[in-house]
Amino acid sequence: MLDRTTPAADLTLAHMEAARERIAPHVHRTPVLTSSYLDDLTGARLFFKCENFQKAGAFKVRGACNAVFGLDDATAARGVATHSSGNHALSLSYAAGRRGIPCHVVMPRTAPEAKKAAVRGYGGLITECAPSTTSREETFAEVERQTGAEFVHPYNDARVIAGQATCSAELIEQVPDLDAVIAPIGGGGMISGTCLTLSHLAPKVRIYAAEPDRADDAARSFRAGHIIADDAPETVADGLKVPLKENTWHFVSRYVTDIHTAAEDEIVAAMKLTWQRMKIVIEPSCAVPLAAILRNPDVYRGQRVGVIITGGNVDLDRLPWIGG
Amino acid sequence: MLDRTTPAADLTLAHMEAARERIAPHVHRTPVLTSSYLDDLTGARLFFKCENFQKAGAFKVRGACNAVFGLDDATAARGVATHSSGNHALSLSYAAGRRGIPCHVVMPRTAPEAKKAAVRGYGGLITECAPSTTSREETFAEVERQTGAEFVHPYNDARVIAGQATCSAELIEQVPDLDAVIAPIGGGGMISGTCLTLSHLAPKVRIYAAEPDRADDAARSFRAGHIIADDAPETVADGLKVPLKENTWHFVSRYVTDIHTAAEDEIVAAMKLTWQRMKIVIEPSCAVPLAAILRNPDVYRGQRVGVIITGGNVDLDRLPWIGG
Repeated sequence: MLDRTTPAADLTLAHMEAARERIAPHVHRTPVLTSSYLDDLTGARLFFKCENFQKAGAFKVRGACNAVFGLDDATAARGVATHSSGNHALSLSYAAGRRGIPCHVVMPRTAPEAKKAAVRGYGGLITECAPSTTSREETFAEVERQTGAEFVHPYNDARVIAGQATCSAELIEQVPDLDAVIAPIGGGGMISGTCLTLSHLAPKVRIYAAEPDRADDAARSFRAGHIIADDAPETVADGLKVPLKENTWHFVSRYVTDIHTAAEDEIVAAMKLTWQRMKIVIEPSCAVPLAAILRNPDVYRGQRVGVIITGGNVDLDRLPWIGG
Repeated sequence: MLDRTTPAADLTLAHMEAARERIAPHVHRTPVLTSSYLDDLTGARLFFKCENFQKAGAFKVRGACNAVFGLDDATAARGVATHSSGNHALSLSYAAGRRGIPCHVVMPRTAPEAKKAAVRGYGGLITECAPSTTSREETFAEVERQTGAEFVHPYNDARVIAGQATCSAELIEQVPDLDAVIAPIGGGGMISGTCLTLSHLAPKVRIYAAEPDRADDAARSFRAGHIIADDAPETVADGLKVPLKENTWHFVSRYVTDIHTAAEDEIVAAMKLTWQRMKIVIEPSCAVPLAAILRNPDVYRGQRVGVIITGGNVDLDRLPWIGG
């Protein structure tokens, strides 16, 4: 049984398979969409795995559900907790709600009201902290002490990685004979899950990660051979600001073929192009792979490429291509 | 064989079936999506037939392909022509391009450059006219005279209606036991096709149409028992401004259960809600059915309802909920 201290090296395919069975009642098997326009533009055959259609609007619900539904009853009864203002907070709140247990979320009091409302909308219980790492850590420790809630890290947790691994298991069933898979990389949870599954089930499929030029810590880590963390990067792809940690570095360092980066304007253009041509709402983070493919056409031309669309939770009142 | 003068009363199920076979190589069998959030909100079970994912971004490509690929070679060689600045122009251009014949589109010179560019992007040849009905008709007659191109009306054409009818044939295969289908109504092409198919294959399924309060000519026609045309209506649902014509009135008057309307703010709210919750890009026109369902909850509560999402061609630089 996985727990929050299980090292990534202990993860096996059986953990992914157990996760898949465990979370099946709570998540969607998301569709794969294609676009002849984008195929013509890139010279590749692209298969978009649409986790923007996932429950809570993002792939992160897979890992969150695996963590929540894997808890024994006594632990579960005390609830779960995390610090996040993004999709992991929504996803963990959703998963906890499905199990009928509390989910405590520590968020800076400066976080946008829309994000707080979204967490509350999924039943999350917010404890506000000051916008500093120290305050967040102190506040989180206090929440843990008072509630006994189980901490579920957004990505540096074997239970979460095993859950994210279910996405590419579906993808390779839906699309045979892929040459490569590309996904955005922030903390590395999705990429690690992808590595776990593909290294066992489809070891010939190359795995690419994509991140913003402005938050290229994973690419620099990859080339350096050890984790390098950025100092407070700023990018439109706000889901990708966080650094790798030891459990995701385990997979990234062993199984990733390469990490490509893209500029801010390339990311926004790829995002808008996807909305225009595919008629789907995707987050800026999900546009980074397409931007990377367009920047590196020789790598992808003629290839069958799975592109993981990680989420669709966008503030529709502030789109990055509409000035204001 | 259908031609542009065939009256709607002569349309049979065999014409829909022939259309389906004819257009199959050129159009998508679009997916049906659901949303537990919108089901909870409406108390109904909603099945969204996503023609926004269709080729050229709209259902209209079905009718356009049926018209274009049904032409004999000699007629086809002279090309096709229409007057439209919307999805029919894109769709007819797409269909003509697939057959390798010219498509002439008469558009007011005041039409947005984005719309002209979109038509040209699909290979359409634009002839500009002054922004008046007289100029449009004169210009169009001149194009017809010079080219001998076959006129394909956006909806008042049996070939087009037979093509649109293929959409609900797919829908009832994808979702068994529907109680009702609802679609937006402008000129009535989609609703007429829906009537053609369902009256034969699923006569117990009730057919609802939805239109803006501000362009409620179909609802008023329905209650009056004869066609009433609006005088230049203005609505955010710009695909729904056109009036019924005799071939669509044939179906609307015989097979539609009721026509519901929605206010401008309700349409915009339903559009934004669909983007937010379903993560799909839909046109304002497609949001009218959801707005109508939300305004008439007692009609739809507890029902299994097919909702036809007619298209996704939106100007992403001007969203109706973002002021400016």
